[in-house]
Amino acid sequence: MTTIGIVHPGEMGSAVGAAARAGGARVIWASAGRGPATRKRADADGLEDVDTLARLARESEIILSVCPPANAPDVAREVAGTRFGGTFVDGNAIAPATTRTVGEIVAAGGARFVDGGIIGPPPRKAGDTRLYLSGSGAAAVAGCFKGTTLEAVVLDGPIGAASAIKMAYAAWTKGSQALLLAIRALAVHEGVDAALVAEWARSQPDATARSERAASANIKKAWRFVGEMDEIAATFAAAGLPDGFHEAAGEIYRRLAGWKDTTTPPSMAEVAKTLAP
Amino acid sequence: MTTIGIVHPGEMGSAVGAAARAGGARVIWASAGRGPATRKRADADGLEDVDTLARLARESEIILSVCPPANAPDVAREVAGTRFGGTFVDGNAIAPATTRTVGEIVAAGGARFVDGGIIGPPPRKAGDTRLYLSGSGAAAVAGCFKGTTLEAVVLDGPIGAASAIKMAYAAWTKGSQALLLAIRALAVHEGVDAALVAEWARSQPDATARSERAASANIKKAWRFVGEMDEIAATFAAAGLPDGFHEAAGEIYRRLAGWKDTTTPPSMAEVAKTLAP
Repeated sequence: MTTIGIVHPGEMGSAVGAAARAGGARVIWASAGRGPATRKRADADGLEDVDTLARLARESEIILSVCPPANAPDVAREVAGTRFGGTFVDGNAIAPATTRTVGEIVAAGGARFVDGGIIGPPPRKAGDTRLYLSGSGAAAVAGCFKGTTLEAVVLDGPIGAASAIKMAYAAWTKGSQALLLAIRALAVHEGVDAALVAEWARSQPDATARSERAASANIKKAWRFVGEMDEIAATFAAAGLPDGFHEAAGEIYRRLAGWKDTTTPPSMAEVAKTLAP
Repeated sequence: MTTIGIVHPGEMGSAVGAAARAGGARVIWASAGRGPATRKRADADGLEDVDTLARLARESEIILSVCPPANAPDVAREVAGTRFGGTFVDGNAIAPATTRTVGEIVAAGGARFVDGGIIGPPPRKAGDTRLYLSGSGAAAVAGCFKGTTLEAVVLDGPIGAASAIKMAYAAWTKGSQALLLAIRALAVHEGVDAALVAEWARSQPDATARSERAASANIKKAWRFVGEMDEIAATFAAAGLPDGFHEAAGEIYRRLAGWKDTTTPPSMAEVAKTLAP
């Protein structure tokens, strides 16, 4: 039985842990420094608390890092500090260059590094979510998720490939949603929103629904997307492409971050007012 | 019979002139300084050549400016120089602030100003294309296109409203297409394009087709979009919104400008190589 450590069981990490358990692994986490929401999720998914990161590193063959993009290097440093000698998988939404840095950090601590990128929602039902993996050791990690709600896909590419597909994918989904929200805000600001929606109904039939969905589905998560937009912008810049799309998208999500704890999604007029007062 | 002057009969202007003729107007143009391609289009659409801008201004009740965005203020200045005293309609893809500048230029010359924005292809068949109009005098201009292939829509808004809806509309169509081309270029650059297309087939079923269409349908027009992206970026900035989306889109179209005279659309691999060598 393979033991997999999850750092840390957020909404995504806990569901990934549950999938690994369904695949036959023992899945552990370390509660030290984590809050009650994390414990509640980990308990609900049957993850075993081993208290400390040191013990988690000692008992794991594989450690899977699932955290906000900005924290990924720190999480890697903490794990490297334990001299973890197994396989470290970074599953975060980070630029290929950031991934390579994370890989160097954990390799310096003695671990083997596998690049990962998760596309889709927390894997609660089959067909929704893919874990892309690249680098030597990817196939063994993929094996842990066989037959589970998380489909592992091994890419024929180096460290950085799994991060790159995640970046390219989110560049469209989250980038186009930020663009649509900015456009609706512009139209409201200029007094032509009703005319734009009427024109879209005739010639861009999906645009209005996409923009409404961007407001209703994403607004509470906007704060989380800011760091991811920074990573996408860095990915574009490293490839010699303009980083302005996602610098702008990051600014849109930054302005919407205050809706984090709203209980009802705001109207488009409220979103517009937040973006262009 | 109303006489309408078109400055100048490009692909769009000539088709708009043809629609105005179908609506019952006499439509004139001035060949001085124009090339043989313009003459060919104007002749084909039955527009009457009055040789000079001075004579065009003398004989027109309405002058309609249809030109590249960067030229709009110069065309307005030329018309203002004739002391034209009729109605000047700017139908170009320019920012509301640029439109207001154009309005001041032609008003100083003695003309009444109407703001216009054309959405859709050159109006060759009914239902494809709208001419949005705003400002006092808009209804009279709209009347010239009644029952033609160009549907005129009078907005209940000030000078700037018609330009604003055009900017908001193109911000999505041309902005999202530039974003998709940049994403495909990134994916090719990182060696994950096939994987991205496979993922899109499962979870973003329209993204691949949209990106292919952006390459095949737009590549010859990319050079023309650069100035329009500048105007959209200025529109966003004036509303207090981030201008990075369209600064980046302008850069994408600038890099693709060299495909202007291609006889066959390039492959996605060629587009990618142009964008991120």
